[in-house]
Amino acid sequence: MKNRIKYIIPKVNLRSFVAKDQVEQTIGEMPGLLVYTGYKRSEIIETEVFSFTEKELEEIRTTHYEESIEKYNENRVNWVNIIGLHDTQLIDKVGKKFNLHPLLLEDVLNVEQRPKSEDFDNHLFFTIKMFHQQTEKGIEYEHVSFVLGKNYILSFQEKPKDIFNLLRERLRSSFGKIRSKHADYLFYRFIDTIVDNYYPVLDSFADKIEQLEEEVMQNPQTSTLHKLQNLRKELILLRKSVNPLRESISALIKSESNLIRKDTERYLMDIYDHTIQVIESLDTYRDLLGGVMDLYMNSVSNRMNEIMKVLTIMSSIFIPLTFIAGIYGMNFEYIPELGYKWGYGAVWVLMIAIALLLLWLFRRKRWL
Amino acid sequence: MKNRIKYIIPKVNLRSFVAKDQVEQTIGEMPGLLVYTGYKRSEIIETEVFSFTEKELEEIRTTHYEESIEKYNENRVNWVNIIGLHDTQLIDKVGKKFNLHPLLLEDVLNVEQRPKSEDFDNHLFFTIKMFHQQTEKGIEYEHVSFVLGKNYILSFQEKPKDIFNLLRERLRSSFGKIRSKHADYLFYRFIDTIVDNYYPVLDSFADKIEQLEEEVMQNPQTSTLHKLQNLRKELILLRKSVNPLRESISALIKSESNLIRKDTERYLMDIYDHTIQVIESLDTYRDLLGGVMDLYMNSVSNRMNEIMKVLTIMSSIFIPLTFIAGIYGMNFEYIPELGYKWGYGAVWVLMIAIALLLLWLFRRKRWL
Amino acid sequence: MKNRIKYIIPKVNLRSFVAKDQVEQTIGEMPGLLVYTGYKRSEIIETEVFSFTEKELEEIRTTHYEESIEKYNENRVNWVNIIGLHDTQLIDKVGKKFNLHPLLLEDVLNVEQRPKSEDFDNHLFFTIKMFHQQTEKGIEYEHVSFVLGKNYILSFQEKPKDIFNLLRERLRSSFGKIRSKHADYLFYRFIDTIVDNYYPVLDSFADKIEQLEEEVMQNPQTSTLHKLQNLRKELILLRKSVNPLRESISALIKSESNLIRKDTERYLMDIYDHTIQVIESLDTYRDLLGGVMDLYMNSVSNRMNEIMKVLTIMSSIFIPLTFIAGIYGMNFEYIPELGYKWGYGAVWVLMIAIALLLLWLFRRKRWL
Amino acid sequence: MKNRIKYIIPKVNLRSFVAKDQVEQTIGEMPGLLVYTGYKRSEIIETEVFSFTEKELEEIRTTHYEESIEKYNENRVNWVNIIGLHDTQLIDKVGKKFNLHPLLLEDVLNVEQRPKSEDFDNHLFFTIKMFHQQTEKGIEYEHVSFVLGKNYILSFQEKPKDIFNLLRERLRSSFGKIRSKHADYLFYRFIDTIVDNYYPVLDSFADKIEQLEEEVMQNPQTSTLHKLQNLRKELILLRKSVNPLRESISALIKSESNLIRKDTERYLMDIYDHTIQVIESLDTYRDLLGGVMDLYMNSVSNRMNEIMKVLTIMSSIFIPLTFIAGIYGMNFEYIPELGYKWGYGAVWVLMIAIALLLLWLFRRKRWL
Amino acid sequence: MKNRIKYIIPKVNLRSFVAKDQVEQTIGEMPGLLVYTGYKRSEIIETEVFSFTEKELEEIRTTHYEESIEKYNENRVNWVNIIGLHDTQLIDKVGKKFNLHPLLLEDVLNVEQRPKSEDFDNHLFFTIKMFHQQTEKGIEYEHVSFVLGKNYILSFQEKPKDIFNLLRERLRSSFGKIRSKHADYLFYRFIDTIVDNYYPVLDSFADKIEQLEEEVMQNPQTSTLHKLQNLRKELILLRKSVNPLRESISALIKSESNLIRKDTERYLMDIYDHTIQVIESLDTYRDLLGGVMDLYMNSVSNRMNEIMKVLTIMSSIFIPLTFIAGIYGMNFEYIPELGYKWGYGAVWVLMIAIALLLLWLFRRKRWL
Repeated sequence: MKNRIKYIIPKVNLRSFVAKDQVEQTIGEMPGLLVYTGYKRSEIIETEVFSFTEKELEEIRTTHYEESIEKYNENRVNWVNIIGLHDTQLIDKVGKKFNLHPLLLEDVLNVEQRPKSEDFDNHLFFTIKMFHQQTEKGIEYEHVSFVLGKNYILSFQEKPKDIFNLLRERLRSSFGKIRSKHADYLFYRFIDTIVDNYYPVLDSFADKIEQLEEEVMQNPQTSTLHKLQNLRKELILLRKSVNPLRESISALIKSESNLIRKDTERYLMDIYDHTIQVIESLDTYRDLLGGVMDLYMNSVSNRMNEIMKVLTIMSSIFIPLTFIAGIYGMNFEYIPELGYKWGYGAVWVLMIAIALLLLWLFRRKRWL
Repeated sequence: MKNRIKYIIPKVNLRSFVAKDQVEQTIGEMPGLLVYTGYKRSEIIETEVFSFTEKELEEIRTTHYEESIEKYNENRVNWVNIIGLHDTQLIDKVGKKFNLHPLLLEDVLNVEQRPKSEDFDNHLFFTIKMFHQQTEKGIEYEHVSFVLGKNYILSFQEKPKDIFNLLRERLRSSFGKIRSKHADYLFYRFIDTIVDNYYPVLDSFADKIEQLEEEVMQNPQTSTLHKLQNLRKELILLRKSVNPLRESISALIKSESNLIRKDTERYLMDIYDHTIQVIESLDTYRDLLGGVMDLYMNSVSNRMNEIMKVLTIMSSIFIPLTFIAGIYGMNFEYIPELGYKWGYGAVWVLMIAIALLLLWLFRRKRWL
Repeated sequence: MKNRIKYIIPKVNLRSFVAKDQVEQTIGEMPGLLVYTGYKRSEIIETEVFSFTEKELEEIRTTHYEESIEKYNENRVNWVNIIGLHDTQLIDKVGKKFNLHPLLLEDVLNVEQRPKSEDFDNHLFFTIKMFHQQTEKGIEYEHVSFVLGKNYILSFQEKPKDIFNLLRERLRSSFGKIRSKHADYLFYRFIDTIVDNYYPVLDSFADKIEQLEEEVMQNPQTSTLHKLQNLRKELILLRKSVNPLRESISALIKSESNLIRKDTERYLMDIYDHTIQVIESLDTYRDLLGGVMDLYMNSVSNRMNEIMKVLTIMSSIFIPLTFIAGIYGMNFEYIPELGYKWGYGAVWVLMIAIALLLLWLFRRKRWL
Repeated sequence: MKNRIKYIIPKVNLRSFVAKDQVEQTIGEMPGLLVYTGYKRSEIIETEVFSFTEKELEEIRTTHYEESIEKYNENRVNWVNIIGLHDTQLIDKVGKKFNLHPLLLEDVLNVEQRPKSEDFDNHLFFTIKMFHQQTEKGIEYEHVSFVLGKNYILSFQEKPKDIFNLLRERLRSSFGKIRSKHADYLFYRFIDTIVDNYYPVLDSFADKIEQLEEEVMQNPQTSTLHKLQNLRKELILLRKSVNPLRESISALIKSESNLIRKDTERYLMDIYDHTIQVIESLDTYRDLLGGVMDLYMNSVSNRMNEIMKVLTIMSSIFIPLTFIAGIYGMNFEYIPELGYKWGYGAVWVLMIAIALLLLWLFRRKRWL
Repeated sequence: MKNRIKYIIPKVNLRSFVAKDQVEQTIGEMPGLLVYTGYKRSEIIETEVFSFTEKELEEIRTTHYEESIEKYNENRVNWVNIIGLHDTQLIDKVGKKFNLHPLLLEDVLNVEQRPKSEDFDNHLFFTIKMFHQQTEKGIEYEHVSFVLGKNYILSFQEKPKDIFNLLRERLRSSFGKIRSKHADYLFYRFIDTIVDNYYPVLDSFADKIEQLEEEVMQNPQTSTLHKLQNLRKELILLRKSVNPLRESISALIKSESNLIRKDTERYLMDIYDHTIQVIESLDTYRDLLGGVMDLYMNSVSNRMNEIMKVLTIMSSIFIPLTFIAGIYGMNFEYIPELGYKWGYGAVWVLMIAIALLLLWLFRRKRWL
């Protein structure tokens, strides 16, 4: 039972809103009204700002948005990271500061938003699913959004835990070209980090499929079926999260926005390439999983057949024997055989002969 | 049995016309002849008019069309809502007043019309399916049509009950920007409200799938199969209603009609995005439902196998034992064993030994 | 058995030519050679001509082609209807009169020709399948071709029975705009009539599917399977007849031929819309039929399982009891229990106890 | 067993080269090196030349290439037909004479080449599969290639037997327009002849499917399954041969080569139309065959179920009866019933009552 | 068991990185950092250089990169072949010498990179999978990359063993046009060699499918199922390796790079043609394999049915007989038949009559 819970997909993945009540209230609501659709959290929202040029770097992480936003410097490249989405008023404040369209903010807050990119003339919007290392509870999705402006990147993430620590290190240490490049290169590095992080998830999928295939070949059980079903469900939801990425990164590359420099485009094409590789792997896994499913059904049926076959053969050897015993258990007054001294022995010989004959017949027909 | 009725799809969904007789009469009929294809209703058709500018608002809802249409004011934005489609003469009157093409009116009246948008130079036609909150009788579809003119929106709905009350409130209270914008923005708000209302339907689908999966894993029964079949049927019909929307909203955005202002286009793109999300969810549900179907078949077959296995094993343990009992039930005059005092005990020992041996064999083969 | 014949598809649908001999003779034959591929009929070919302006109408229907063609008047709109295709010489005569390309005539005569439209500069060719009301013998297909010229429409139909009577009435009565419009509008009315006539066929399909679903849920039998198979076959052939229509009507609309006036185009788009609706319905029916097929297989298997289960349980309750009876039927001289006065009663108690225990076990395992 | 061999696909169809050794030697080989990949034949290659204008015709068929090629006359239309491909040196000679690209010759010799058309500025290359009338050994494929030059057609065929005799007759008799037209029209006539010859193959497929469906409905057997499997295999390979034709004929029509005159294009479009019809028929056959496959599985399973059901019911009626007989076969000293005079009769009555009760129960449950 | 191991796919194919640890370290890492993702090898990397004009040829193969690179001569055509990828520093050195983009080097080192081509203005990058002759361990994939510059080709291969020996011979012997052409022709010859080498792999697939089909028809076993499953897995992975090639070769042809001369384009189109043929074959194999899978399931089920049927029939003949024997084994004091002298004989006659009747009934129902 432990196992089944392990693969279960959190309910929020199948429903597109958290609470029915909430949904009904917002239908017909004006589009500018901001509603956060994820799980409410008790932590206070943190804001993180990195403001840097090739030579200088200022960094702050605080729960006071106003304090942190003072570090924002138009003459530098700025990364403003909002950690936590449940305070819609704060998000609204950020939206006003950076002059963001209400529909963009709506997409930032809607954790069920599919990956997309949109060009708002003076800034680009990009949203993607971030996967955290897979734990026993299955894959943990996180809705992350980016806004790329002329000299800033806004990022919005749901939870404090993220996978950008290496990037932070690079920014601080000024190692590599990350500090010497523009905001669009940093933007590329964020997406690249997230897409690269898809591979371990894929690998854990491959491992699970291999492991289930082994289990199916060795000892298929009902719990194997439930694991297969859960893996399939997980795969369907994963594909739903990743598939739109192809189109949205392609849109980024094709957009004629001057926010993305010529030499960054090649890097984006590299991400596009990786995305296609991820999608193709998911397709391959689906095919492989389908194969394991077929194998399961055939294995279970083969095993059942084997049991039925051996036992049925057993019964059909004893059935004529029992019949013969029944014959001589009859109480007719005149059954000549019963009087013979060697009668009993002869019956035994007959029975053994019949049993051997049947065994030989079954073996000749390859039923044994 | 209650349950089966719950999911049944009303017959009108599978047939494209109400009555065969009616159909045969209209084949070859000239296209301008108006025929209403939905259920006839006894209520009188109501007309509702909202005529407003940012500062003023006039509102009327009455069963006298002529009375209400007087509120129509060319200098304001007007929303004319026709509630009920079964009076084709009234529809014809509206068509003449607003100079509508006969084919457009035909589409308004044909409740089986798939979602589409069409550009008639001086007005745009848009038709869509509205879903009412799902009741025990399944999803309730309603055919709704809109005509967007320069300063008016015509809407045609089948039944008095609708989901636009929040919009009416907004219009009355002048809260938000709805009164300060043009007819095309109001038009967007109508479609947005309808598309937003698809989400609760999707969620109830997700819930049903989850619930059926649970039922299949716990205790699959014939009624579960019927529920699965009905859910699948519902999904197929839902997809048929929603799929054409993608194309028709895309056509709206791409149309070069000057009835839709530049800044409204971004809002329409937001609806387009939602529509794709709805369609992708339906595709996901189809995959998930297919998975549950497979699970059902495997679960039923596993359960059957379990029963057959245990019982077959039971029989095959008793078969040789019964045979032995048969042997010593024979009436041969000379069966030496029968005379031994310990004969009976020895047979018991033999039988128990055979039973244990078979049990051990079966367990070693993992059949138990 | 009556039922099976009912749905059977006439063999001509699967073979593309009537007779093998005929085919082999025509392979490599020059394309201008006219061969009629349908069933030969004994009736003489009839010709029908309607020649009209808004004010006048001349009408003739006769078996003498020459007589009827005299009514053809270049200054009016003319509808020339050839009823029966088996007289290739007559068809050739018509072809010469109207200057038709040999390949066009080939398509007119080939009843297996898929729907298509082709633009021959000074006339348009359009061929389509007409469905007659479905009888007990299944759907009756008819190959109908149209040639639209500047002021005439040629139509070629296989059989005297058609669905154009209402149109004839309209022409005679001068009701509606049919007489005041040009040849292209009449052309639209023909196609519209034929496409409208697809709906009753669709509805009868929907009815059959519903009816079979009911049958499958209530009492699935082998004959149900054969009905399902025949319905599927019918659906496959129907899709093959209708699917190419999408493309061919789209080609009509996109063709820049000046034979089709601007305002007729919107009418053709309406037909296009209907065609897509028909195709989508057929796709939906395929999905629904697939669902009923699955349901059938599951229902049959469930029913079988139920039988097997109850009967197997029955046997496995009696097997240990019969074994016990066998034990005390043995003829050992010394079986102490046999001598006890209450022995027989005790065995009955034991047997009933075992039976109840097993029943309780089976029920606890939910096998009953 | 005869039957199985009948449908078997010759191995060459699944492998793309004749001999592994040969393949390994040619990998990395320079593209100009000519290798014939079909079956070697002992016959000497024949060459056939038709050189004609509307008024004259010279014709030769000989095993001496040089002799025949002398008939080639630049001022006439020439058809040069090479019969047999196994003499690569001769093919090379032809290639040099007509200035053909080495890759073109490679495609001529590779009998596994898929249908394609390629434009080599001063000549067009076209390759297609020719089907001979289906014999007991299944469909016989032949790889045929054409080169269309300004005033010549080269054709390359594997075997002496072909389907062009009618064309030869037409050329000789100067009947029809074949002699008065240019090389491109003759080219069209060749392809048309080959494509027309696909129809009898399709028809024989349709016949086989019908016949197998009948067999499945009447008396499904293991050999039926093998026939179905072989038909499916044949269909897959047929589709693989025909599908690329769509694209390659479309390329011919779209090519702006001035080798194909304007009025020939319409003829090619007619072939294109036929090709699509052939492909659609193959798709339809696949669907139909899938249906027959399902029907087979269901029929076999239904038949098995019927056997099992009747026999299981039989056993379960006798099981309680045998138990009762066992009861009164026990040797207890005190079994009161045994002493009653009417005891034996009462047991018979009891047994018959139980049997009837069970039969009634089974019938009420519709198991009988 | 040998057999199962034979088809197993090496784990590296399902996981996209070798070691999880490694992966986690590189996520978020800057793109220029080179990581080799294949198996580490102990051999020293070799470098091979062919520098030639039509008249001269210099050739070297050594483990000292610096030594070999001295042979590089800008005025000749150069082929620089790096054998072994595990020394990232050396690769970096090569990258600097030829001015290669870091992303290009990343793709060279990532053995899981899907086939692609990319245009870097002054050089073209192309990567493809090379298949070595299939051994008992299944297909051996190798990641090979090419860089085509103005007068050089760089090639990177993982292992010393390759399939280019014939090309080396051609270069040395100056036979054919390979030395007289430019670098792009040599580039074509490399790809052509690799794609040609796909055919034997395809053929071995075809052979395996045929062989498994034979096995399924003759004697289907559990091991057959495992072989089928492994073949399917292999096919899925093969398709994943080959499918992207279509697009990447098409991109090569369409690229307007002046590195590829006009007359080389036709050669590339020939490769494109071969690639499509390979992909179509793989699709065909998938269909065929699916057919064999179905055949397996049906065969196993048919065989099981046969066993069950015969044995069940056997039991149901003996069941009534044993019942009769039971009747006359009862110990009632008054059973009149027991006293008759001919009673025993009569029972035998009755039993044989019943057995014959049942046999006749079963045969009439065609169950035997």
